[in-house]
Amino acid sequence: MPTTTSASGSRPGGRSARVRAQVLEATGAQLVEHGYDGLTVDAVAERAGVHRTTVYRRWRDIGGLLADLLDAAGDDGWEPADTGTLEGDLTALNEEILAGVAADPPLTTALIAASFRSAQAARALRAFWEDRYARCAVVVVRAEQRGELPPGTRSRELLVTATAPMYHELVLLGTPPDPHLPATAARTAALAARAGAFTGP
Amino acid sequence: MPTTTSASGSRPGGRSARVRAQVLEATGAQLVEHGYDGLTVDAVAERAGVHRTTVYRRWRDIGGLLADLLDAAGDDGWEPADTGTLEGDLTALNEEILAGVAADPPLTTALIAASFRSAQAARALRAFWEDRYARCAVVVVRAEQRGELPPGTRSRELLVTATAPMYHELVLLGTPPDPHLPATAARTAALAARAGAFTGP
Repeated sequence: MPTTTSASGSRPGGRSARVRAQVLEATGAQLVEHGYDGLTVDAVAERAGVHRTTVYRRWRDIGGLLADLLDAAGDDGWEPADTGTLEGDLTALNEEILAGVAADPPLTTALIAASFRSAQAARALRAFWEDRYARCAVVVVRAEQRGELPPGTRSRELLVTATAPMYHELVLLGTPPDPHLPATAARTAALAARAGAFTGP
Repeated sequence: MPTTTSASGSRPGGRSARVRAQVLEATGAQLVEHGYDGLTVDAVAERAGVHRTTVYRRWRDIGGLLADLLDAAGDDGWEPADTGTLEGDLTALNEEILAGVAADPPLTTALIAASFRSAQAARALRAFWEDRYARCAVVVVRAEQRGELPPGTRSRELLVTATAPMYHELVLLGTPPDPHLPATAARTAALAARAGAFTGP
């Protein structure tokens, strides 16, 4: 579930799209370099080389900029890897989360921190994550089709079980990134799923 | 893993302990009511009815106050419930986490948010959590003794699996508190543990 600074997405070119890409890239860069306290509309406008009234008119404030940055990040056509096994798919997902959280510049961590400051950013981040979980439902469908999982396995619950230890360890507990964690958390969730944790009432 | 505002703990009385209790209670109350941005040494001193130089001398700054608040919260003799089953003990633990995160005033959530602003608060919060996980190791030992778990089950990994979905859902994803979540997350971790997720290499 990587978040990217690129706002290019699927939109065709044109001045409006170019301005959006410049402004959102400046928003991410400013956040990462100066933190939420250094993130002002004026600083973003200057960094993007765009008139400040353009930014105020289109995004209104920092919350609007962060929400649009997250909307654009979600607009990237991302799909989970298809490795041929449930455990492999979940491991690949967790590897992406690890890469995102440990990335330099630390945009993902900065966006999570910003979500504690701006309700609009928090809503956008949560929508981004829920969209990623929805896209990952196919991982569970494929595992059911291969007979790896019982039919009717609740995908979101399984996916939260697989990924929550990543966020808990890396973001809240702040443990140093463990290269084995993506695979062990994936294996744990797969074992629980096969034992019936996500089926039944 | 509740965090409390009380700094009384096991310390005997005396003026120094009373001042500490007053100052830490004021720190928690000020944080909850005015957020990290409204948390200043001067505001805490005034609220506690203590001279500001006393606060500066003993705690130095906001990071020092938050770290001591968390130290005091961890100094409460807390132990996990002994319900007679692994799943029951883990559910009780998750119920406490749910109560803490959903509490009013929302001190736990405010401390987590503050940990993104102050490195000293982050270190203290992590130490608090690690101490709680260490105290919970007895839950796994008891389950092994009852024959519920294979010997050599890694307790921290099991405990993180049981509790991570609580923090992920309630703090990061911001889903409304689900009264079933404590038990379902506990059951998932117990199923994974019995399937051997936390033993072996």
